Amino acid sequence: MNHLKKYIVFLVLVVATGGGYAQQASWIWYPGDFETWMSNKMQNRRTDRNSFFPPFWKLDAHYVLMNFNRVVELTAPEEVRVYAEGTCNIKLDGVAFETGIHQFTVPKGRHTITVKVWNQANVPALFVQGKTIVSDTSWLVTFEDKEWIDETGRTSDISATVWMNAGTWNFKNHLQPPSVFRLPTRPVSPVATEKKQGQYLVDFGKETFGFIKLHGLKGKGKISLYYGESKEEAQAEADAMTLDRLHFATAVSLDTTMPLSKAFRYVNIVFDPTITLDSASMLYEHAGLSNRGSFTCSDTLINRIYNVSAYTLELNTREFFIDGIKRDRWIWSGDASQSYLMNFYSYFDNPTVTRTMLALRGKDPVTSHINTIVDYTFYWFISVYDYYRYTGDKTFIKQLYPRMQTLMQYCLGRRNANGFIEGRSGDWTFIDWATGLSKKGEISFEQLLFARSLETMSLCATLADDNASAATYSKEASLLKQRIFDAYWNKEKNALVHSRVDGKSTANITRYANMFGIFFDYFDAGQKEAVKKQVLLNDSIQKITTPYMRFYELEALSALGEQAYVLQEMKNYWGGMLNLGATSFWEEYDPTKKGAEHLAMYGRKFGKSLCHAWGASPIYLLGRYFLGVSPTTPGYATYKVQPALGGLQWMQGKIPTPDGDIEMYCSRTEIKIKGATGNGTLVLNSKSKPSGKNVLVRSTAKNQYEVSIDPGVEYSIRYQAL
Amino acid sequence: MNHLKKYIVFLVLVVATGGGYAQQASWIWYPGDFETWMSNKMQNRRTDRNSFFPPFWKLDAHYVLMNFNRVVELTAPEEVRVYAEGTCNIKLDGVAFETGIHQFTVPKGRHTITVKVWNQANVPALFVQGKTIVSDTSWLVTFEDKEWIDETGRTSDISATVWMNAGTWNFKNHLQPPSVFRLPTRPVSPVATEKKQGQYLVDFGKETFGFIKLHGLKGKGKISLYYGESKEEAQAEADAMTLDRLHFATAVSLDTTMPLSKAFRYVNIVFDPTITLDSASMLYEHAGLSNRGSFTCSDTLINRIYNVSAYTLELNTREFFIDGIKRDRWIWSGDASQSYLMNFYSYFDNPTVTRTMLALRGKDPVTSHINTIVDYTFYWFISVYDYYRYTGDKTFIKQLYPRMQTLMQYCLGRRNANGFIEGRSGDWTFIDWATGLSKKGEISFEQLLFARSLETMSLCATLADDNASAATYSKEASLLKQRIFDAYWNKEKNALVHSRVDGKSTANITRYANMFGIFFDYFDAGQKEAVKKQVLLNDSIQKITTPYMRFYELEALSALGEQAYVLQEMKNYWGGMLNLGATSFWEEYDPTKKGAEHLAMYGRKFGKSLCHAWGASPIYLLGRYFLGVSPTTPGYATYKVQPALGGLQWMQGKIPTPDGDIEMYCSRTEIKIKGATGNGTLVLNSKSKPSGKNVLVRSTAKNQYEVSIDPGVEYSIRYQAL
Repeated sequence: MNHLKKYIVFLVLVVATGGGYAQQASWIWYPGDFETWMSNKMQNRRTDRNSFFPPFWKLDAHYVLMNFNRVVELTAPEEVRVYAEGTCNIKLDGVAFETGIHQFTVPKGRHTITVKVWNQANVPALFVQGKTIVSDTSWLVTFEDKEWIDETGRTSDISATVWMNAGTWNFKNHLQPPSVFRLPTRPVSPVATEKKQGQYLVDFGKETFGFIKLHGLKGKGKISLYYGESKEEAQAEADAMTLDRLHFATAVSLDTTMPLSKAFRYVNIVFDPTITLDSASMLYEHAGLSNRGSFTCSDTLINRIYNVSAYTLELNTREFFIDGIKRDRWIWSGDASQSYLMNFYSYFDNPTVTRTMLALRGKDPVTSHINTIVDYTFYWFISVYDYYRYTGDKTFIKQLYPRMQTLMQYCLGRRNANGFIEGRSGDWTFIDWATGLSKKGEISFEQLLFARSLETMSLCATLADDNASAATYSKEASLLKQRIFDAYWNKEKNALVHSRVDGKSTANITRYANMFGIFFDYFDAGQKEAVKKQVLLNDSIQKITTPYMRFYELEALSALGEQAYVLQEMKNYWGGMLNLGATSFWEEYDPTKKGAEHLAMYGRKFGKSLCHAWGASPIYLLGRYFLGVSPTTPGYATYKVQPALGGLQWMQGKIPTPDGDIEMYCSRTEIKIKGATGNGTLVLNSKSKPSGKNVLVRSTAKNQYEVSIDPGVEYSIRYQAL
Repeated sequence: MNHLKKYIVFLVLVVATGGGYAQQASWIWYPGDFETWMSNKMQNRRTDRNSFFPPFWKLDAHYVLMNFNRVVELTAPEEVRVYAEGTCNIKLDGVAFETGIHQFTVPKGRHTITVKVWNQANVPALFVQGKTIVSDTSWLVTFEDKEWIDETGRTSDISATVWMNAGTWNFKNHLQPPSVFRLPTRPVSPVATEKKQGQYLVDFGKETFGFIKLHGLKGKGKISLYYGESKEEAQAEADAMTLDRLHFATAVSLDTTMPLSKAFRYVNIVFDPTITLDSASMLYEHAGLSNRGSFTCSDTLINRIYNVSAYTLELNTREFFIDGIKRDRWIWSGDASQSYLMNFYSYFDNPTVTRTMLALRGKDPVTSHINTIVDYTFYWFISVYDYYRYTGDKTFIKQLYPRMQTLMQYCLGRRNANGFIEGRSGDWTFIDWATGLSKKGEISFEQLLFARSLETMSLCATLADDNASAATYSKEASLLKQRIFDAYWNKEKNALVHSRVDGKSTANITRYANMFGIFFDYFDAGQKEAVKKQVLLNDSIQKITTPYMRFYELEALSALGEQAYVLQEMKNYWGGMLNLGATSFWEEYDPTKKGAEHLAMYGRKFGKSLCHAWGASPIYLLGRYFLGVSPTTPGYATYKVQPALGGLQWMQGKIPTPDGDIEMYCSRTEIKIKGATGNGTLVLNSKSKPSGKNVLVRSTAKNQYEVSIDPGVEYSIRYQAL
């Protein structure tokens, strides 16, 4: 794979550090290494009935020996202190300091600081603090520290080595190296308790996550804690998915905190009669992110749905975007790809997105699909470009590009003789949890995702200045799209069929490929209309029972302008969960089920996750397709605002961008909007020409207008909704 | 690289464990993982003037999550205890035990035990002890624990997963997991000391290695320890290659041991006047291997050379075969490939060989040559087959084969347009330390090694049942050999020229390619004779000054039957070092140098290593070409004994084989020999037909005879040396 290296940018090593003020240093590392290490730690916190339950795919490791390098140009001598997580070798202009010397003066002029750090247990990391010299992403790193020995001594061979910009996060304290990182917590008390002999049931009033703390524990004996997202689960001791067991012996009254965080609303604490217990509370663990996005409207149910969605996303946004807090607590690429989109309409936190993408990708060689799932590999590709579209972070794409290439090589190498992706030994074709869904043969849905992934590769190749590959990927995408329509488009049914088995197209129509075809813009106008009628709005086509796929179904309908329908669906579906007492949104919701049936999944009574990230999609749908805000060039340099009330009287909210929030209010007659840094275009359907102070309006068609939104300017616009 | 996997043998999972006696369990891990982890630890012990000095190539990491699997067939229920280094999940027939349960009963019949272990800091390792169920190499391991989730629950997907036989060593104590491993030590006192104010010089009488211990230390102040392989080095404080510094404050008299082992004969301890010190000793650290091979003869200088060689090899045989004990303490492939061969005539310790080969190879993806050196990659290939030839360990070859393939892919991908290997950016072309040696263009020596590597791949492909690749590699090797003779054979000079630059063969003749051409058997008889005269015995061709290349030079001459010449060269060259007071053999020896010049190298006064593994080659030369023992089929199933006295009156010794030693005595008139398990053939040149009790002789040509050596039988043979 060595030929890939040429696409790594060889960054200019010299950065003038002329400023006279002290800058803030950060801990730095090889990009992706802390993410890999931390994700291993997080994903291995899953337990199942008090058994450790690790992921069932390859987990990668950090590079154990790292070379950090920085050339500085100083106008005055400067003292620096070097802190390393690991055994380190510090050199100034190629001359090493003796072990123990971590503080030295860099003379005026141009100098090279090199620090090698070795650490097998934790990620080799570096913190350098001077007045102007600070460890940050301008430092270069390499794990292949090639250095030649000739007869006269050692010389560094920078040119033969692949250097990357260092990875970092927000670790600004030299005394707290990356390995000690923990998410913040805050104490929370239960809202209700029930106590009886040897049993204590606590209720925190809503779904939550953290560490249970037992207060005033005394005596000698056993304690079991049964966690429940529902009261039924906590009380069904033998079926609760998670539990803790303690053996205790204390003569004095003690408090104790469980070592492992859990998801629960209820905790059923069962203890021997030889034990006494005063009370229980919890330490709520959270990512500490602030929600920059918001949404309120004239419909109180929609407001509740939005708020519970935001809480659901908060609970599932941890060190990384995870699937659900009770059971897996793993990073699943399909699930995460939805969280990224929700994030762009809420936290707009780039580090959580890039951390998650790096953790999912892992390292070369590629030995299986991401999470072992074919579709999950493709979602990963597609999300990379989504990230670029929303954030404009080209550096990340460039540094990730070599790992994108090797993953795509893996996919291309697994096509069958027809050029299609078909599940091979070791591959899991997921699509969705749906009864009777066929995974046999060549599935149209997988080919659509594959085509979009190839298009993504082409776009990213261009960003990485690899124009030859960009052309190749683009050609492969076109070929595949042609093959898709040849193989799957059924002219009688006016839709894509689900699959081809043994070279023969089936007659089976499912929603999956058809809804993606719409928002991928793979259909022409006629096909879109046909698919809408024949598939999306056709009740005889198997219904979707996961919020996961409802996300895409409602996105497709929203893209077709069916906001009124989508709003009603949202109220029925998410409102349906709220009616059943949901305090966070579920992994699956089938309105036809009754009572405790809603709690079961995977053949287990309480198998279902009642707090699943993919349940929070109203955040995205409301921001993207109701407030209607989306970037038109990467990073919101330009953006479009195309509000659609979908039957609401009014709505208002904030949409975050890389630099500032877009604030807006929208009724049937008025729009108030304040732009962010980029240049926006408000797209309106109106019976009359929109008007207002400083409002520049272009008419684009009958009853269609565009209004320019200049950076930071507040507009108040009168119009007449159609 | 996934298509390579098919060559992994899918081993039969069921092993009947019918025996009624308790078997001894070993700690097990993924093959190569402990080796990688431990080699990182060992190689990062290098210091240079009290600075940590790590290797300058990629260091790999262990797989952090491992799945261990064993199917057992029991005739009676059996209790097992499970110990893991890491967080573990234990399942019996797919059902997990709760955390903390490490002891359970496996019922009668066929059952599957699965243990998953996660450990980021240390290698995930397992120890299982039952009566018949024990952790050993029959357990299967995988880092790609693919398991499918379907709607009804989880099912294990063994078939899609690449399983390997577990790796192990000799860790038999469940309380001592692999991470706590340390080499054994024993205390040694100096043979001479010199004490003066604030200074204490200790002499251990010969080169040695270990931890210095200071006795009766008292007071407050600084102590520096300067280590010297020579007295000059220890006393030249500012130029000593290794040193320790202590800051001490104690009112009571204390003993203290240095945390890091060092190489030295002398230690110069310099301390503040505020400090007092009684004495110093050391803990000698060694691999604890016993030397099964031996050699003594009528020449006392040769006997001294053999003994000092054996001691040199002992010092450099540690967790792995290292280059030299003072400076690098690293695993260098070229150096190690010689140690393997010496090992086959001394320790015959397979684990040290396989550990070293695994550590050198590391993991995929291949991002540079082994140790960054082109020739060192090729030596690695060649050594793999050497290992098979001497040990017959086919399982190791089969398990290593996928990593051999990816490394060879890397090499093939780096050929130039002429199909030759030529140093590219990041490659180090080493060959030898020799003044003025050209590394430009296409070096003939590298092509010879490359051809031999391709031949090795072909042989190993056959062992791994990959016949298609075997044919391809073989064809590539033939093509390359043809190209070598076309490009480099100079008909006037009757030798291979050193290189081709810009497509033109140079006229420069060096010894390197020519001596390898002889023992690779790439030359015909005429070419061999010509090369011997024109190159090897031609004083006008640049002389070799490292024992490293003298190894191959003398091997070539021995292969041509020039033992008498080789014996004299050995006495001059190795004897020359002994005359200068060597107590172990050096990295380089140039007889034309004088006094302290012998200590300098790499532009540093004491840069040279005075104890370098490659200095110990007489062990190999005397066993292989004087006693004349070598396997003719893998693992000594059959072997040849072709003694050559080379002017000695008599010689005797032992040669180890996988099963028993070959013992022999040889004079000009008598040979006593006792065979090992395999079938030997004694090849003799004799004026008369050899004779003796039970001696079966075949005459093969005039004055040439073959005698059958049956397993374990002692023979006493009369003959008349020519």
